[in-house]
Amino acid sequence: MSEFGGVAMIIDELSGSPGRFAALGGRSQCAYPLPSRKAAGQIADELRSLLFPGYFGPEETNADYLRFHIGATVDSVSRNLEEQVQRALCFECTAPEEIAGCGRKAAELTRQFIQQLSQIQQFLLQDVKAAYDGDPACTSPDEAILAYPGIYALTYYRIAHALSILEVPLLPRIITEIAHSVTGIDIHPGAQIGDHFFIDHGTGVVIGETCIIGNRVRIYQGVTLGAKSFPRDANGVAIKGVPRHPIIEDDVIIYSGATILGRVKIGRQSVIGGNVWLTRSVPPGSRIAQGKAQFDAYDLGAGI
Amino acid sequence: MSEFGGVAMIIDELSGSPGRFAALGGRSQCAYPLPSRKAAGQIADELRSLLFPGYFGPEETNADYLRFHIGATVDSVSRNLEEQVQRALCFECTAPEEIAGCGRKAAELTRQFIQQLSQIQQFLLQDVKAAYDGDPACTSPDEAILAYPGIYALTYYRIAHALSILEVPLLPRIITEIAHSVTGIDIHPGAQIGDHFFIDHGTGVVIGETCIIGNRVRIYQGVTLGAKSFPRDANGVAIKGVPRHPIIEDDVIIYSGATILGRVKIGRQSVIGGNVWLTRSVPPGSRIAQGKAQFDAYDLGAGI
Amino acid sequence: MSEFGGVAMIIDELSGSPGRFAALGGRSQCAYPLPSRKAAGQIADELRSLLFPGYFGPEETNADYLRFHIGATVDSVSRNLEEQVQRALCFECTAPEEIAGCGRKAAELTRQFIQQLSQIQQFLLQDVKAAYDGDPACTSPDEAILAYPGIYALTYYRIAHALSILEVPLLPRIITEIAHSVTGIDIHPGAQIGDHFFIDHGTGVVIGETCIIGNRVRIYQGVTLGAKSFPRDANGVAIKGVPRHPIIEDDVIIYSGATILGRVKIGRQSVIGGNVWLTRSVPPGSRIAQGKAQFDAYDLGAGI
Amino acid sequence: MSEFGGVAMIIDELSGSPGRFAALGGRSQCAYPLPSRKAAGQIADELRSLLFPGYFGPEETNADYLRFHIGATVDSVSRNLEEQVQRALCFECTAPEEIAGCGRKAAELTRQFIQQLSQIQQFLLQDVKAAYDGDPACTSPDEAILAYPGIYALTYYRIAHALSILEVPLLPRIITEIAHSVTGIDIHPGAQIGDHFFIDHGTGVVIGETCIIGNRVRIYQGVTLGAKSFPRDANGVAIKGVPRHPIIEDDVIIYSGATILGRVKIGRQSVIGGNVWLTRSVPPGSRIAQGKAQFDAYDLGAGI
Amino acid sequence: MSEFGGVAMIIDELSGSPGRFAALGGRSQCAYPLPSRKAAGQIADELRSLLFPGYFGPEETNADYLRFHIGATVDSVSRNLEEQVQRALCFECTAPEEIAGCGRKAAELTRQFIQQLSQIQQFLLQDVKAAYDGDPACTSPDEAILAYPGIYALTYYRIAHALSILEVPLLPRIITEIAHSVTGIDIHPGAQIGDHFFIDHGTGVVIGETCIIGNRVRIYQGVTLGAKSFPRDANGVAIKGVPRHPIIEDDVIIYSGATILGRVKIGRQSVIGGNVWLTRSVPPGSRIAQGKAQFDAYDLGAGI
Amino acid sequence: MSEFGGVAMIIDELSGSPGRFAALGGRSQCAYPLPSRKAAGQIADELRSLLFPGYFGPEETNADYLRFHIGATVDSVSRNLEEQVQRALCFECTAPEEIAGCGRKAAELTRQFIQQLSQIQQFLLQDVKAAYDGDPACTSPDEAILAYPGIYALTYYRIAHALSILEVPLLPRIITEIAHSVTGIDIHPGAQIGDHFFIDHGTGVVIGETCIIGNRVRIYQGVTLGAKSFPRDANGVAIKGVPRHPIIEDDVIIYSGATILGRVKIGRQSVIGGNVWLTRSVPPGSRIAQGKAQFDAYDLGAGI
Repeated sequence: MSEFGGVAMIIDELSGSPGRFAALGGRSQCAYPLPSRKAAGQIADELRSLLFPGYFGPEETNADYLRFHIGATVDSVSRNLEEQVQRALCFECTAPEEIAGCGRKAAELTRQFIQQLSQIQQFLLQDVKAAYDGDPACTSPDEAILAYPGIYALTYYRIAHALSILEVPLLPRIITEIAHSVTGIDIHPGAQIGDHFFIDHGTGVVIGETCIIGNRVRIYQGVTLGAKSFPRDANGVAIKGVPRHPIIEDDVIIYSGATILGRVKIGRQSVIGGNVWLTRSVPPGSRIAQGKAQFDAYDLGAGI
Repeated sequence: MSEFGGVAMIIDELSGSPGRFAALGGRSQCAYPLPSRKAAGQIADELRSLLFPGYFGPEETNADYLRFHIGATVDSVSRNLEEQVQRALCFECTAPEEIAGCGRKAAELTRQFIQQLSQIQQFLLQDVKAAYDGDPACTSPDEAILAYPGIYALTYYRIAHALSILEVPLLPRIITEIAHSVTGIDIHPGAQIGDHFFIDHGTGVVIGETCIIGNRVRIYQGVTLGAKSFPRDANGVAIKGVPRHPIIEDDVIIYSGATILGRVKIGRQSVIGGNVWLTRSVPPGSRIAQGKAQFDAYDLGAGI
Repeated sequence: MSEFGGVAMIIDELSGSPGRFAALGGRSQCAYPLPSRKAAGQIADELRSLLFPGYFGPEETNADYLRFHIGATVDSVSRNLEEQVQRALCFECTAPEEIAGCGRKAAELTRQFIQQLSQIQQFLLQDVKAAYDGDPACTSPDEAILAYPGIYALTYYRIAHALSILEVPLLPRIITEIAHSVTGIDIHPGAQIGDHFFIDHGTGVVIGETCIIGNRVRIYQGVTLGAKSFPRDANGVAIKGVPRHPIIEDDVIIYSGATILGRVKIGRQSVIGGNVWLTRSVPPGSRIAQGKAQFDAYDLGAGI
Repeated sequence: MSEFGGVAMIIDELSGSPGRFAALGGRSQCAYPLPSRKAAGQIADELRSLLFPGYFGPEETNADYLRFHIGATVDSVSRNLEEQVQRALCFECTAPEEIAGCGRKAAELTRQFIQQLSQIQQFLLQDVKAAYDGDPACTSPDEAILAYPGIYALTYYRIAHALSILEVPLLPRIITEIAHSVTGIDIHPGAQIGDHFFIDHGTGVVIGETCIIGNRVRIYQGVTLGAKSFPRDANGVAIKGVPRHPIIEDDVIIYSGATILGRVKIGRQSVIGGNVWLTRSVPPGSRIAQGKAQFDAYDLGAGI
Repeated sequence: MSEFGGVAMIIDELSGSPGRFAALGGRSQCAYPLPSRKAAGQIADELRSLLFPGYFGPEETNADYLRFHIGATVDSVSRNLEEQVQRALCFECTAPEEIAGCGRKAAELTRQFIQQLSQIQQFLLQDVKAAYDGDPACTSPDEAILAYPGIYALTYYRIAHALSILEVPLLPRIITEIAHSVTGIDIHPGAQIGDHFFIDHGTGVVIGETCIIGNRVRIYQGVTLGAKSFPRDANGVAIKGVPRHPIIEDDVIIYSGATILGRVKIGRQSVIGGNVWLTRSVPPGSRIAQGKAQFDAYDLGAGI
Repeated sequence: MSEFGGVAMIIDELSGSPGRFAALGGRSQCAYPLPSRKAAGQIADELRSLLFPGYFGPEETNADYLRFHIGATVDSVSRNLEEQVQRALCFECTAPEEIAGCGRKAAELTRQFIQQLSQIQQFLLQDVKAAYDGDPACTSPDEAILAYPGIYALTYYRIAHALSILEVPLLPRIITEIAHSVTGIDIHPGAQIGDHFFIDHGTGVVIGETCIIGNRVRIYQGVTLGAKSFPRDANGVAIKGVPRHPIIEDDVIIYSGATILGRVKIGRQSVIGGNVWLTRSVPPGSRIAQGKAQFDAYDLGAGI
């Protein structure tokens, strides 16, 4: 076989591979393009400049012109979002003739979403306040906005959550995954989170799809609010959407590396210590800590 | 000294600094440019569009044209990869006259690599299936492909591993490090990983160079499969390449934050609980969990 | 209300929202633009090419031309840095007439910073040596430079720390946060870190603002050097700048996932085991490990 | 009035200005965006790479891969062209409900156009041959393809002419105007031009809408084939589309700067000298030259 | 001499060459950067989108949002223009301490210029009408706006002329030269041009600095309105700014290739034929044509 | 035939079309890529910043850093130029084994070219002086450098001419054609041009391959220095390289639109009037003007 012969065969195999995806249940060959991660990122970025005017977006503008920039950005982001929402809706289409309907629905959902921006901003302002009040290293609310990964992740989460309530498929998950990539904080768009939420440092935080988190909750890096177990169907596929993540009540603090699994309830004003592994509910006001570290040398040989 | 005088001195010092790197054993001044992280990222991206046709790459194409796009991308990625492989091979050259030989070898290795793409795709399809089957939050295989960091990291790992088996220096490590940056999942290209591997959330996962992982293994965020200790040579430099990471047998599950260190074996169908610290082998079917969390308030003062 | 009516109302609300930020104590509407994260990233990138000449920056140059590229980059980065330092200084201005003064001070601080580049390079060379000597997977110092997230994070930290000692506001934090996003390693620019520091893998590492770390310290992924508690003022706002993070003495090793909180001292040559939770000082030479993992099945039902 | 007051007034006036355009008969506010000059340029560029495979488009490919690149480009250019054709068709819509119809028609016209590409290529090959054969400075056909403005202009003209025959509005004119900008050669897409056409240098050439040019015609820079006069309607507006430009028969040569105006016929094998001004027909085989230049100093003072 | 030796010498010579420019009277090393052609091009492009709203600028917006985009563009273009005006003013500074004054003056001139935009638009609308009414090939005013080089050139000229009346140095000339490059139409910003001006095709048109052109004038490609002679000073340098170009009265038509030189007056309603060379005044209503072309073969040998 | 069927056929035809080019004598499928117009443009731009330091290239640098930027640019442009010279040399290769030889020769020619840069700069300085001295509209030498198309075209010509003397194929022509596109001035790289050359306005100027132009010559827009006739070979192909363009002696002025054809000699200090058509030699000191324009109305009907 000639040199190119081997390559030509690979091109053939890869060209034939959509069938392999279809066999898995994938729908890559639908009649309309899939949502684009790059476009989702630009949309989230534009929305962030609307939610934090003067902090992101055009750097050098002044108060006289702010309104013009906001209007221009609303125009642009509406068009971009509508296109991606339509793609996401079409992804669930089974017939080409539904595309036009997806277009109309996308326009309507986009309009509804845009009208929630001011309310989303209110939540984020409270999150900023919680970061500033709660972190001795934070020298101003502006620093929290400009440099705190927790605020970045919550901005993307609150956008994605609003889209998820409007039942836009796929796109919310893509948006929170962008924030996950940038911050290491993985919040499922389906989670419900109250006001004044503060995540410090944040790398490794996981907040599962069916979590319910109250107001004024504070969590640190590496905290998992996950599922412990879940039912599977006859084919061994996990059954989707069952409530399986913790409920965290108001004013709870959870320190770094703690893992809370299952549909348990952490009572209000509880404090969960670092690296704790917890799979049961605890009453309000609980103080939970890891067993004391040992003072010995076992498993730590001289060679290290 | 004039204002610029001080700056000029710094320019001189930095210009003279390659000697400092040479003193460390670095080879930055070799006769051919070093591999480029940016180019490596573009190559991995192009390969991803070949491995998941219709999901990444040109967004709006249709089935009629798919084969053309795949062929055009194979052409482009082959050329780009060959250049970076040549750079990586030249990095280990000691004499300029070896460069031409590196070029020929790079062409041959690139050709061998390209011919493995279909096989790599098969592995990734199984990984996608494992994600969809194993995560109740995953609503379709497509969502796993588009939004799961575990799939992203495995795509890059499986590419890098194939290059590493072909003994391409440096480049595989650069590719997995890109995935580490994007996903927080750090898989060494030298690790051996079986089929249907599922990493959920993934931030903080570390899989060391000499790990051997079986089929249908599932791990969660923050899991470390690391080395416990390793020998050093007379100069105090760690001896390279010694088997020192765990062997994980088929069907093992390892929960978030667990740390398994050393050349230990985790027997098949074992379940390792969250935050566990484990430095010894366990037999098949083991269930390992952290000591119970204490219910007390120690070290958690009222001031928090 | 017309379709556009609802949108127009949102545009009005968002346009009026700078007042909301001002109410929080934010200063987004100062007379000069805020520092730009994008510009900060470009500056850090240019500085990295100065600190590792031949590794980053122009790929294909040779020794004859190195000095020219270094000089040209010093020119470019000085101008860019001066602009961002001026923005950061102006951010703390209360009156427009101070802007010119900020400009002069920015020029002076930039000049002072540039003159420290050779010294910063010396530290980084020692960090590279520590990585190469300490990691059996590291095949050359060059690999550490090109592909180790720890080196990336320390490069950004050492730049930011120098700026922070010059009392440049905001910018150092933005720079370390970029490294946090890329590597998952979160080092506050205020921390003090000695020579030959090695962070392996690094995802989830947190090093707090008032940490003091000695020479030849080695830490692994997921290690937190954090605050345990801190005083708040009458309004419930955390009091800023109080020493509240650990002191790590020379030659200490801290394994993955360990959490050390509060102004405690870890004596020299101590080894802190993985996943340990530690909130008190330990004497030199200590060996601290987590309580042994249990061998049981509790909380791990057959359904998982 | 405050400083911004004056600017705000201008913003208001410009915002209200679409009415001024409407008063002229302009349709800028139609329901669909106008064709984009930038998109038209990209389309023409992609088409050029199809018409001259190996000369434009991906630089480093080889024969094995050519077909893939061509197919991929056909896919891309079809989509881009269809969008711009739809915009052009919608430009003449009077009602929003016609947009879908424009979309269908655009798809059909695009398909018809693409199927003419091979035929267009045949014409261009003959034009290249004419350039090579006819210019002593042209060292190879490749040089004509790579560096001759006449070939560039004819490529764009032949594309635009084919679109114009399909009755696509606006777009053909935008495409030839791009070539006019690049080459200084202004060929109206409505002109009819035979085979083996050669334009040397070309700056200042104008070929009007209703010109008919035979085979093997050769023209030089600055030649105008224009209209002499044309009727106007009762409002003084020029009546559109009347035949008013010259007919140039086979094998005619027209030297630089010659101007031929009106619906005249230049008989075959005629030679029209440089700078000639001609407004009447001439029989086949004519030789027309400008009156002899005078040998005197009039109007050329010593001061020059 | 080593290979690099020769190159190093060239670097030295070029580095020392600013002295050569200074010797000519050039001021390249002034204390502030020179105006940038690229920035001038972006400014002119932004201004064009303000002057033709809906035709250029954001393609897909609609009437609801137009005002926001216009305001946002006014903000952006004001800032960009102010910077380039300051550079142009500083270019004429002789002392560094004048830079701040240039900044204040630039802000004021920019404000004055912006306030003329609506008036400039009025002129351009008349030019568009003249193009549509006067060219049988022009199918709509929109086509003139989107595809006529004459309208492009007049847009840039009318912008540059307004800046030139405000006595901004250099920048106006840079702006008209951009239009010259794009269209082949070279209008000096100092020329005075009335309303309803129409330039058809335009390549090669030259309109000199001290031209005065009335209303409703129409000219074709290749027309020169130039200087015939001009005085020089004792050093042989042309004396600057003397009136030396033609005055063209209302309703004159000048056909392609005509050349009119010197401070002559072309009386109203005159028609100047193609390729005419004219260096004297003509009364109103004149009809001037080139001597009849000869019908002979001289100088056109059979070999051609 | 299915819709795609027709398109597939076109893809096949275009894919097979390299044979059509080969039939013409084209060499598009040579073993090495063709020179790239885009790369040629970047090279010419970089060279321009070396030839006019402080005018083009980095805008905001100062005298302290100039030498670094020049050295860095020499490095970059040498590498880029060497690659394009190699492509151009390979274009004339007939066998793949000559490629390495082309590479060596390209390195040598590039080195020789770079060493001429200072000398090229000397010529351009004289051209700038000629523009400033000779044009009353030119307010400073800097304006000539920044905004005069003649200086732009001469810069590209003098670069291309030096490459052409080194016998680099194709590339010189591509470079002058870029200038032709930007300025409308078409100077063949083979032409020989003395010092203090001034082209005013320039659109439509054509200077042929074998022209010889003395010192202090001044020409205006639309001037052609072309060939009158040329011999063809037995196949009707123009014989290449024969001297066939005018010789212009020192201190000649040629006004706009003049056409001089053939191997004629224009004696020193002659003045050739506008629109003159000249095909014979004239002695030194000649004054040549067009026949007087007629004062009549022929061919200019009332209807115009």
